[in-house]
Amino acid sequence: MIVIKVGGSRGINYDRVCADLSGLYQRGEKFVLVHGGSYETNLLSEKLGKPPRFVTSASGYESRFTDRETLEIFSMIYCGKMNTAIVEKLQALGVKAIGLSGVDGRLLEGVRKASVKIIENGKRRILHGDYTGKVERVNTELIHLLAGAGYVLVVSPPAISFEGEAINVDGDRAAAKIAEALKADKLIILSNVPGLLRDVADESSLVPHIIPSQLDSYMEIALGRMKKKIMAAGEALAAGVGEVVLADARIEQPILRAVAGQGTVIKA
Amino acid sequence: MIVIKVGGSRGINYDRVCADLSGLYQRGEKFVLVHGGSYETNLLSEKLGKPPRFVTSASGYESRFTDRETLEIFSMIYCGKMNTAIVEKLQALGVKAIGLSGVDGRLLEGVRKASVKIIENGKRRILHGDYTGKVERVNTELIHLLAGAGYVLVVSPPAISFEGEAINVDGDRAAAKIAEALKADKLIILSNVPGLLRDVADESSLVPHIIPSQLDSYMEIALGRMKKKIMAAGEALAAGVGEVVLADARIEQPILRAVAGQGTVIKA
Repeated sequence: MIVIKVGGSRGINYDRVCADLSGLYQRGEKFVLVHGGSYETNLLSEKLGKPPRFVTSASGYESRFTDRETLEIFSMIYCGKMNTAIVEKLQALGVKAIGLSGVDGRLLEGVRKASVKIIENGKRRILHGDYTGKVERVNTELIHLLAGAGYVLVVSPPAISFEGEAINVDGDRAAAKIAEALKADKLIILSNVPGLLRDVADESSLVPHIIPSQLDSYMEIALGRMKKKIMAAGEALAAGVGEVVLADARIEQPILRAVAGQGTVIKA
Repeated sequence: MIVIKVGGSRGINYDRVCADLSGLYQRGEKFVLVHGGSYETNLLSEKLGKPPRFVTSASGYESRFTDRETLEIFSMIYCGKMNTAIVEKLQALGVKAIGLSGVDGRLLEGVRKASVKIIENGKRRILHGDYTGKVERVNTELIHLLAGAGYVLVVSPPAISFEGEAINVDGDRAAAKIAEALKADKLIILSNVPGLLRDVADESSLVPHIIPSQLDSYMEIALGRMKKKIMAAGEALAAGVGEVVLADARIEQPILRAVAGQGTVIKA
């Protein structure tokens, strides 16, 4: 079993991703796809007069502040537009795809963090009314039920709190949690960069291989959203996933190339 | 098994619908929920500068002209905002809900009608680029797989064409097709009116009972979207569903009251 996360940043070509997935499917490979939608969520937020608000936590991680209105816009893009379109593309290619958010059947459950400590203009502040959280439990029975009947799962945030509120969760870390729960051999995290770069302005500065024990030391060169990917990789490996590959979603056959080791391969 | 369709018109209270459904669920009743989203789709379409376009077919039925951009807005509301919110509400009430569109696992399949013959200003015209259709096949295996594991399905248009394109389908007629496929005892169609009215301006003019053989004669007093509900009722009854109730979604315990016969009951 492979878990594949494809980001939602600008420049990602979902046609290529889906063509590649249909190849895997025809060969009988088992996989779960997790997708993002951040770029389109930003666009819709702007259009609806509710510009996205990104905050930096006291520990240095960037995240989308998600009040209830933002959560609805987020769901419109992730579950409505993106998930439906990906499932449609896969179905047109003959893949028995089925789309689920983490809310469906409590697929991805966690604790809601209703407030977030941020650093703004150098000062600490607390923002309330946040609908975010972290996945702590995966409904593997539901995944096995559907996978056992031949369906391919296309999974999207939001997740659901134990109290039953939809919560925004990081897609990379959710994918890591799914990989852990399914005891996956591999977690592939595709985005609009070739992997971890020593210099973000230079795509040839790719770090081709990282030993898990040295992952922490790479946190410093990981900028912005890459920090969460490194964190997700660390969590997956610590939980028993054999290998994590950070790779490029923009190229032809992005998944096959990642499986073959093109990107940043993190394993012992 | 009961199939319940709840419309997406203004004034419908989904909190009441979900509270009522959780009561049915606690008592062990089996049901599938199909929901709409037309009002919210209209609002979002306006906000995004793509106002909805309703056309009247040569045979007198009104429908939403659905080009690809409209289909995406439609999916954002139906699958993204409404479906996620309904599943979330049900989950918070302890119902093992799972949301699916007709695209997921080809739950609702049909033929795409790429052009529509309309009457505009008294003249006949053909509009191309329509992504609409009619449900012809229901993936009952998928429904039974999930229902058998205790999940409650919350189903939303769009459906999918045999070629794999998402298509806008009428929710009432889709619900009728699901009721037929599941050999349901009852189909309940809730909207923002008490049932079929002889005079739309007078809610006390409710038609309490219709014999299936006389359904056609009521088509004349059915206006606007009510025409499709009468058509859906006729299709369900002709296909073996025992009883159809057209009832009010705005009241307390809307489903229990409809089951008890409050509304327009159509049966032999």
